[in-house]
Amino acid sequence: MNITVIGCGRWGSFIAWYLDKIGHTVFLYGRRESARMRALLETRSNGLVTMPETLTLTTDLHAAADSDIIVISVHSQGLRALMRELAPLNLQNKIFVLCMKGIEIETGMRLSEVCAAECDRSNRVAVWVGPGHVQEFAAGVPNCMVIDSDDEDAKRTLVESFSSELIRFYYGQDLIGSEIGAAAKNVIGIAAGMLDGLGLSTLKGALMARGTREIARLIDALGGSELSAYGLCHLGDYEATLFSPYSHNRMFGEKFVRQEPFDALAEGYYAVDALLRLGKTVGVDLPICSAVYNVLYRNEDPQDALNALFTRSIKNEF
Amino acid sequence: MNITVIGCGRWGSFIAWYLDKIGHTVFLYGRRESARMRALLETRSNGLVTMPETLTLTTDLHAAADSDIIVISVHSQGLRALMRELAPLNLQNKIFVLCMKGIEIETGMRLSEVCAAECDRSNRVAVWVGPGHVQEFAAGVPNCMVIDSDDEDAKRTLVESFSSELIRFYYGQDLIGSEIGAAAKNVIGIAAGMLDGLGLSTLKGALMARGTREIARLIDALGGSELSAYGLCHLGDYEATLFSPYSHNRMFGEKFVRQEPFDALAEGYYAVDALLRLGKTVGVDLPICSAVYNVLYRNEDPQDALNALFTRSIKNEF
Repeated sequence: MNITVIGCGRWGSFIAWYLDKIGHTVFLYGRRESARMRALLETRSNGLVTMPETLTLTTDLHAAADSDIIVISVHSQGLRALMRELAPLNLQNKIFVLCMKGIEIETGMRLSEVCAAECDRSNRVAVWVGPGHVQEFAAGVPNCMVIDSDDEDAKRTLVESFSSELIRFYYGQDLIGSEIGAAAKNVIGIAAGMLDGLGLSTLKGALMARGTREIARLIDALGGSELSAYGLCHLGDYEATLFSPYSHNRMFGEKFVRQEPFDALAEGYYAVDALLRLGKTVGVDLPICSAVYNVLYRNEDPQDALNALFTRSIKNEF
Repeated sequence: MNITVIGCGRWGSFIAWYLDKIGHTVFLYGRRESARMRALLETRSNGLVTMPETLTLTTDLHAAADSDIIVISVHSQGLRALMRELAPLNLQNKIFVLCMKGIEIETGMRLSEVCAAECDRSNRVAVWVGPGHVQEFAAGVPNCMVIDSDDEDAKRTLVESFSSELIRFYYGQDLIGSEIGAAAKNVIGIAAGMLDGLGLSTLKGALMARGTREIARLIDALGGSELSAYGLCHLGDYEATLFSPYSHNRMFGEKFVRQEPFDALAEGYYAVDALLRLGKTVGVDLPICSAVYNVLYRNEDPQDALNALFTRSIKNEF
């Protein structure tokens, strides 16, 4: 199939490399002014994998018009602006696949909702979530991921044409849960990094039990299935997010509490704001998200905030 | 309170030390012929903590008769024999607290059932489960654990008198789930070690999602609450069991697949047998337990067995 991948970051460029490798015709789009794109154009490498000649690098968004599938891997909060850039192409009958994890802060909309709202109704929207780090995939270590969509046909098409020995795809069955779960795991990842930074790594066990429960309640209140919090999109991504040295969000949380410099804000930094707004809307209390928010945005002492989460002793667990 | 701790292994001796430290009058019982007990009597140290003079070391089971609470930390499969050794003391109105994780293989009985069946009905039985490694506690790193019992009063007494800044206890609300979850986490720990040994550590994310689901189904079929699989007794213990270098079960699984020598069979080795029998009884399919069993007992190739768990691609997740 003809596929355009929009976004030339680590994950976007890996996806392009992967889809080319399993036999698709792939265009990888990056902005002309992007330093990453310039590096790719010069070296064809993203530092982990090298783009073969069969893969076309382009700085022209028009590539999307000739593709069956448009895979998007850009900053969550930039999705709406990108969709508006695509509007003049008047794209129809495409399948959009969203690979980033987040919620639009201003509106509280899931990314699939943002995407659908900004394109023709003939297009279909899916998300690609679940565990897996580029570094591991590049080293040939397999993992399981999920494709979810409200459109069963698009889901089937994607799972069948994207699966390989390296990435084993499952059919998601709860788009709300898959998207909320995926966005929220980055917040739990930041909390895990904070515990690591405070020398409280052993509390990551309790964090996992409480984190899944908290997100399950939110998903349920939003109309999804609470089981999704315990699936690949959320709990299944905890190994990669709470324990891996490659996890951006975990590392960000660790550096934040150690007051060490960090390159960029992690996705969970934005997600926690969006999740708390959603929680307020549906009346669900989110103690872990609140603690992370208070440390990141309100300068609360991390030791106090996190420790307090686990000192509510002498009470029922559920 | 007067407490006798039976079992002088790493966990039993730590518990005795801990209960003494928080102000109880503690007797630590070990068999006269036990090498560990002899070492304790000589050095008063278990290698991690030193027993203060306020704590009484004894090789006489009669200590139990003068205690309000009897904490037991022996091999799961040896509990019934121990209870029969205690029978001549005709213990009454005690609270038994079981700290090991397992199921009696021959009968499929939970340990609280074994204990209750072998003592006077005036006694009450509770379990102490959840994450926490002696090494971490000895270093002052806190954790959250659970006390569960069918007897609300015993549960309250124990949570109130055992809680401290170091160990924060929660009330369990599902004895079946707490015991099955605790026993089963050791099996998932062995599976995690096998993945580590095969260089497939990234699949531990998928293992967590699938493992909790599998055990939730079993707990549900046995009459417990499936939420317990996602609580401290099971998922909450995954950090300690699936990721910690201190985890016996994880290390056992890793050494087993690497064909390296190991000191002793891990608890999960017995638990997997018992769980599969229980699963058969209630008609629940346990694919991860089966894979671990087939590798341990039937010489199946671990790469094939474990990989197969995660290659059932192109299907629904739940």
